[in-house]
Amino acid sequence: MHLSLVCLAKPVLHGYFRSSCSWRVRIAFALKGIEYDQVPVHLIKDGGQQHTEQYQTLNPMQQVPAVEIDGITLSQSLAVIQYIDETRPGPPLLPADPKKRAQVRMISDIIASGIQPLQNLHVIQKMGTEKVQWAQHFIDRGFQALEPLLKQTAGKYCVGDEISMADICLVPQVYNAERFKVDVEQYPTIKRLNETLLEIEAFRVSDPSCQPDTPEDLRA
Amino acid sequence: MHLSLVCLAKPVLHGYFRSSCSWRVRIAFALKGIEYDQVPVHLIKDGGQQHTEQYQTLNPMQQVPAVEIDGITLSQSLAVIQYIDETRPGPPLLPADPKKRAQVRMISDIIASGIQPLQNLHVIQKMGTEKVQWAQHFIDRGFQALEPLLKQTAGKYCVGDEISMADICLVPQVYNAERFKVDVEQYPTIKRLNETLLEIEAFRVSDPSCQPDTPEDLRA
Repeated sequence: MHLSLVCLAKPVLHGYFRSSCSWRVRIAFALKGIEYDQVPVHLIKDGGQQHTEQYQTLNPMQQVPAVEIDGITLSQSLAVIQYIDETRPGPPLLPADPKKRAQVRMISDIIASGIQPLQNLHVIQKMGTEKVQWAQHFIDRGFQALEPLLKQTAGKYCVGDEISMADICLVPQVYNAERFKVDVEQYPTIKRLNETLLEIEAFRVSDPSCQPDTPEDLRA
Repeated sequence: MHLSLVCLAKPVLHGYFRSSCSWRVRIAFALKGIEYDQVPVHLIKDGGQQHTEQYQTLNPMQQVPAVEIDGITLSQSLAVIQYIDETRPGPPLLPADPKKRAQVRMISDIIASGIQPLQNLHVIQKMGTEKVQWAQHFIDRGFQALEPLLKQTAGKYCVGDEISMADICLVPQVYNAERFKVDVEQYPTIKRLNETLLEIEAFRVSDPSCQPDTPEDLRA
């Protein structure tokens, strides 16, 4: 009885409304139709709640997200998304074809390894007055690579005509680009995909503008 | 006939002997017993051969590795490794159990998204005289997170007793740590796993000390 209760417990997402990596996980949950609870971790208040001893037991990298699910705790959004995909019914988040799966992972990793880590809060905080220029440099470098790749792989969405993990990564990264005043008009494929994806319910309900910890003045 | 020739062609790895991400792919090929050709891309000579127009068609991120395989070109080492795993026989590089798979991906991503991108050549080149201190900071931060996680997940290897993608990521990252004079003694689990893994043939033959482009004075 106890065991089955553990298994049936709703997943808990420890995240932050404006964290692009938390947003990725929110989109995955929404696409799969999975109910979950959110525990806000304020990345600025009190010097950053991600640095508390309690939070470090959830994610020793002191970053969001951390997800409690099925009795384990996971960090790293792409690991979480692929775990959800491999254990939950609903629309697949990776295509069945191995070559397309590889393309989805390549695009996801260009964002998750090649762009986001270089413009995330911890790095930006170390850059002082150069922080906007630094973030713009790395987002532009990544988008300059993504644009020609997406031109080859995209159909309606990033890879073909099915929504995938690549789309889940793209939309929050474009949001970050806009926050750092990157000119997204330079990247017509990225811009078109982002606009298409933002029409979809799962992307809208998981948007930073409408989360439990979104401050009043930033609410849509 | 033409198509089958394409499929049977050996994969081509465009990499650099000392690149940790290239080394990851070399380990995966070796573990699977896959023959491949190497085309060296010198990251320093001529201002960096990864910046040539020709190379950018292989990897617009202007980084190594890029892999030509089965008629497609892939970049991002974890996408390549998982593609190999999903299309080739031989020992699996991810466990069958979904929770263990997630732990393998989490550990791999802590390295591939949380550590390596912050100490790679392009970033370090921007840091000038602070480059060693910067690299040490991010490697230590990552290892401080990995050590307690690996204590929980490791058996003989990073996750349980089977070699996985997490091990493939760990060894090249420890090599980078040593290059940047990080004190690996502080991380007994990481140190123990690295030593165990370096005994394995697939890790040894793919080592930076014995690649086609390894300079004479760095050869083992």
